[in-house]
Amino acid sequence: MKFTRFEVNSAVHTGVIENETVKEIKGDIFGEWEYTGNSFSKSEVKQLAPLVPNQVIGIGANYVSAKTDLPESLPEIPVFFFKPVSSVIGPEEKIVIPEGIEQVKFESELAVVIGKEAKNVPESNVLDYVFGYTVGNDVTAPQFFHSDGHWTVGKSFDTFTPLGPVIETELDPFQVKVEAKLNGEEKQNSSTELMIIPIRKMISYLTNVMTLKPGDVILTGSPVGAEMVGSGDVIECEIKEVGTLRNTFAAALEGAKTV
Amino acid sequence: MKFTRFEVNSAVHTGVIENETVKEIKGDIFGEWEYTGNSFSKSEVKQLAPLVPNQVIGIGANYVSAKTDLPESLPEIPVFFFKPVSSVIGPEEKIVIPEGIEQVKFESELAVVIGKEAKNVPESNVLDYVFGYTVGNDVTAPQFFHSDGHWTVGKSFDTFTPLGPVIETELDPFQVKVEAKLNGEEKQNSSTELMIIPIRKMISYLTNVMTLKPGDVILTGSPVGAEMVGSGDVIECEIKEVGTLRNTFAAALEGAKTV
Repeated sequence: MKFTRFEVNSAVHTGVIENETVKEIKGDIFGEWEYTGNSFSKSEVKQLAPLVPNQVIGIGANYVSAKTDLPESLPEIPVFFFKPVSSVIGPEEKIVIPEGIEQVKFESELAVVIGKEAKNVPESNVLDYVFGYTVGNDVTAPQFFHSDGHWTVGKSFDTFTPLGPVIETELDPFQVKVEAKLNGEEKQNSSTELMIIPIRKMISYLTNVMTLKPGDVILTGSPVGAEMVGSGDVIECEIKEVGTLRNTFAAALEGAKTV
Repeated sequence: MKFTRFEVNSAVHTGVIENETVKEIKGDIFGEWEYTGNSFSKSEVKQLAPLVPNQVIGIGANYVSAKTDLPESLPEIPVFFFKPVSSVIGPEEKIVIPEGIEQVKFESELAVVIGKEAKNVPESNVLDYVFGYTVGNDVTAPQFFHSDGHWTVGKSFDTFTPLGPVIETELDPFQVKVEAKLNGEEKQNSSTELMIIPIRKMISYLTNVMTLKPGDVILTGSPVGAEMVGSGDVIECEIKEVGTLRNTFAAALEGAKTV
């Protein structure tokens, strides 16, 4: 099932996409919901980020180039980071490059949407707490990384977390490819089998630190091939079974100082 | 005005404290609210964290020992970090030390509560966006810091962000002392004048990166004197004009594995 948030006549709705039809629903996608009976053609709605996350958690440097490069032992402490919810945008919205810099980095990722409160969950049960999957672009301005290794500022600018186009609930996350095309040219294309810390271990570890909540989004890392890009560049992040998340990079408006 | 969240007969309420009386209110403390007419004696309610934050942002290593130690130029990129909202607890709740370690660190801090959406706010206007102030304890397990400088795991365990006891809206944040007593003995006691990155600059910088929202909490850094502590230790974080935030450290229950 493909869940969407969308805008028609300046009003925001939630819906389920079936072929070219968007069927409006009401209620809580993580709990009780029902069809309203209203439906729209996909072409007449503007798709938004498919949820307003409760929080966004990312993991750093989580892919190898080939299965033979997978390490024998996993890092004891994974590199996790938070991105603010205020950085989330939807498909087709502009990614704004902060004033004072010319380029930022795209990173196409499989994004896991948590559906149930999760604490101390063993690896074998992790998928019971997953609601579905979307595509994320973990946009990053490494120029704003602190020299002591703190990434917060460089990951947190408004518009730096495109999500979408839908939440697909029926995906096998171990059997998909995470792709990115820059101005039409393929830059990333890796199976999720190339993750260093695999999804079950990643989420189980997180639930042993913190209680995950419905609406938490976990960006599971980006395949090799991410690049620095500039104003006017068009990025399409894609997982075929979920859809394509397309955004254009734009320079900051004058007067919107970043430092 | 002192805002509180409190529990009576297992129901959670919001209120305003006047002397020993808690007057219940309803509505949005950041918007429209009114008194319900119900009131309670302070001694008959259990005070909770005074808000459920929208998000929690901290700043690292932000105090010097004496004014003469203040640097002439500020760091270009401050060390900001996020703590998950799931780590927030209230006064008197137990701070749980993760399994596998014996000690964690307390850090008494002035916590700023944002009241209005804030983007690109100049330093001179920052206080217009502040709703009030509470006391925060930025509990940290440095054993879970990544060797490359990432603090996320070590800052994110459940119970690691005590807040309270109230949000004081009438504080002058530049004229208060941030204190901590460990088992009754003073460990921290510094004026907020000893902040390296002062409050106006810190929040203005943040709004030039991300849009702050009502309910965002900013932990403004901890004075010198924080220590590692263990199970059974009692920490009282205090700003006299706001109140005392008292918590006890406890070992993790068996079976609640952290790694």
